[in-house]
Amino acid sequence: MTEASEHRVVVIGGGFGGLLAVKGLARRRGVEVTLIDRHNYHLFQPLTYQVATGGLAPGDIAMPLRHIFRGRKQVTVLLGQLTECRLDQKQVVLSADAPGGVMTVPYDTLIVAAGSDYSYFGHEEWRSVALEVKSLDSAVEVRGRILHAFEVAELDPAQEESWLTFVVVGAGPTGVEMAGQIAELAHDTLAGEFRNVDPGACRVLLVEATDRVLGAFPDPLPRRALRSLEHLRVTVMLDHRVVDVRPDAVVLEDQNGTSEIATRTIVWAAGVTASPLARMLGEASGAEVDHAGRLTVEPDLALPGHPEVLALGDMVRVREAVGGQAVVTYPGLAPVAMQQGRYAARVVAARAAGRPAPAPFRYRDKGTLATIGRARAVADIKGLRFSGFFAWVTWLFVHIFYLIGFENRVVVLLRWAFSYFTRGRGNRLITEAARIPASADASSPSSGE
Amino acid sequence: MTEASEHRVVVIGGGFGGLLAVKGLARRRGVEVTLIDRHNYHLFQPLTYQVATGGLAPGDIAMPLRHIFRGRKQVTVLLGQLTECRLDQKQVVLSADAPGGVMTVPYDTLIVAAGSDYSYFGHEEWRSVALEVKSLDSAVEVRGRILHAFEVAELDPAQEESWLTFVVVGAGPTGVEMAGQIAELAHDTLAGEFRNVDPGACRVLLVEATDRVLGAFPDPLPRRALRSLEHLRVTVMLDHRVVDVRPDAVVLEDQNGTSEIATRTIVWAAGVTASPLARMLGEASGAEVDHAGRLTVEPDLALPGHPEVLALGDMVRVREAVGGQAVVTYPGLAPVAMQQGRYAARVVAARAAGRPAPAPFRYRDKGTLATIGRARAVADIKGLRFSGFFAWVTWLFVHIFYLIGFENRVVVLLRWAFSYFTRGRGNRLITEAARIPASADASSPSSGE
Repeated sequence: MTEASEHRVVVIGGGFGGLLAVKGLARRRGVEVTLIDRHNYHLFQPLTYQVATGGLAPGDIAMPLRHIFRGRKQVTVLLGQLTECRLDQKQVVLSADAPGGVMTVPYDTLIVAAGSDYSYFGHEEWRSVALEVKSLDSAVEVRGRILHAFEVAELDPAQEESWLTFVVVGAGPTGVEMAGQIAELAHDTLAGEFRNVDPGACRVLLVEATDRVLGAFPDPLPRRALRSLEHLRVTVMLDHRVVDVRPDAVVLEDQNGTSEIATRTIVWAAGVTASPLARMLGEASGAEVDHAGRLTVEPDLALPGHPEVLALGDMVRVREAVGGQAVVTYPGLAPVAMQQGRYAARVVAARAAGRPAPAPFRYRDKGTLATIGRARAVADIKGLRFSGFFAWVTWLFVHIFYLIGFENRVVVLLRWAFSYFTRGRGNRLITEAARIPASADASSPSSGE
Repeated sequence: MTEASEHRVVVIGGGFGGLLAVKGLARRRGVEVTLIDRHNYHLFQPLTYQVATGGLAPGDIAMPLRHIFRGRKQVTVLLGQLTECRLDQKQVVLSADAPGGVMTVPYDTLIVAAGSDYSYFGHEEWRSVALEVKSLDSAVEVRGRILHAFEVAELDPAQEESWLTFVVVGAGPTGVEMAGQIAELAHDTLAGEFRNVDPGACRVLLVEATDRVLGAFPDPLPRRALRSLEHLRVTVMLDHRVVDVRPDAVVLEDQNGTSEIATRTIVWAAGVTASPLARMLGEASGAEVDHAGRLTVEPDLALPGHPEVLALGDMVRVREAVGGQAVVTYPGLAPVAMQQGRYAARVVAARAAGRPAPAPFRYRDKGTLATIGRARAVADIKGLRFSGFFAWVTWLFVHIFYLIGFENRVVVLLRWAFSYFTRGRGNRLITEAARIPASADASSPSSGE
């Protein structure tokens, strides 16, 4: 499979970071790349919340990785679970999710871009109740749970209150977008579709532990976002901490004490914990791992003591100087991962060609965008802060531009156009995986405070 | 919920039959309709095989039932499992797939259109191995299994033979279409995407117990379909019966004896068994039920002895005269169900208005169509039999016409156009539900011949 003269690069993870790393290497001579992922597709993660609320279909924002690199003979794509990183032997082992199917892949350079998950603050038992919308499978499950909640309320209006209360935890961009979309789904899309309950009477709560929404955005954007959310009839609960999550309720704590909210649908968008691969690499190399499981890497993204291993994206923090104490934690955004992916490709290409290493990685902040419901957004682009319709159009074109695949771009634009004019959502399916287990009451996991 | 003066109609099933029945009643004065289904959407079942091979997305061919009837205040849609039919009390009981959520719905007229499933010829244990493509969830699972098979072969080429052998059982329209689509997926769509195996080297077998494909079509269409399948490099095995299904093989029998074929992917499209509701109604009323579980109904689709209960679609056979022996079994096609659904609405409307009953149901055969791969089809329209590109264009417009929802029509046309010119398939996702269980080898269910 491999010619001895080629520099063999293995890339773990087909998200933004890994994808850009492979793209940066796919046309280099003398380099051979193997891209490994658990999924067969690259996911445009910034739009998964739209899948979770029926606005887009899963396939609209996902593209098979091997289709992206079909014409690049020096790129091999493998679908599998990474089971072992043998740093000493410069090998990774992966296995298919099927009988047999195990492969050992040797590398000269390893690039790890395995991303992060939401953190449930040590309460792993909350994960099965309060779903997140980071992965596509999970977004489809959230979509089913939200739509199913309206269905149960219609069938049994006596239970309306808890089924028509939706709680979103965490007011970062994903939480804000989710809350806004659920509110629009209930007030606009579902209007007129029910006979026994009024979906517009539902409550959408956005729970945030700090004192503002979109805390990473500069003023006045958090204030404007808050106003937009209130306009959409989202109840924003600032300074509230989640202390328990159950299938039928969430318990919140603020300075006045705790309160219990009856709900059947909780969406989690708070906290962050790096991929377990970060810890695995930390343990194998002795590199530092922080409280969120992030690996500390050198200014050129290399694992300390292992220049042949690079790690990037929201699973790492980056040292400002080689071996130094000062460490930068970049925001967990697609542009950071993309720039780091491109940078990693430049590092590898320089090495393979025997050229000097590029200057240390520097993030160029091109701006931040978040939508809050239909035709509303907030933007901070190189210090220019604006909101409303123009911010939304900017948001729209930036997202279409970075989406991969011509068919996906056309279909997504079309769906947004339909939705803009009709307030409809074309993908409101409750699939089997999303059915609420009938035994949810009986099992009732609790954190047992 | 109900005014005493209204005629209350309950419709079970939102397939073609139930949908047309509700549509036929939705504008009648003095009638109130409750439509009950296990899924929240109407599925355009003739295209599920395209979801199973990545050509269309699930949402493209499904439309939320309550969206279809959003403007019709006299139509209530309920999502739930029918748990009981109380013919004496004229009530049905249904339950949500969730804690609580039980409802009793009274009716003056009950219309049952619950459809059918494939029959595994008494081997229910085959069902989990040899998936069908009748439901949307199952089609998504088949899609994942087919795509995953190529992935495992790429990871572990030693196992290539069994992973790259695909077996379709049953050469009716669905089986023929599935086999053709798998062959095209392998030869066209996936070409150039793999490095360790050649997807074009895969084998697609279509197994049929009789001596021809598309047996319900008149000559010369079966011969032409056979030629098209061979052109697509599908191996058609006529006069072969399936005698065992295992996760790693299928055993076939013909006049020369049995043979075992190593395969990891079996798609089932043979036999038919009516919805269990047919038997439930038969037992409750004493009406006849045939070997395929189909209920025998009167010429006006009424349950014998229960004129207030109508049943239709591929869960019934229809008597030619009231109380007579001669019974018609119509083909299990969408047009039959649609015409019967419209007829049932006319029966109910006449009763509610106190008008005489319409003449007994008669099926008007407008023709049959089947596609075999890209830009090929066979057609039999009122005795006019043709095949090739023109048949395919006819097929295309008939399907777009009957698809529900403007957005769906535009998106499906767009996808077919992309696919026609690029041979691509935009929805090739392997989702979690579709992962092959790692223990498939260990559990190895077998019919124990």
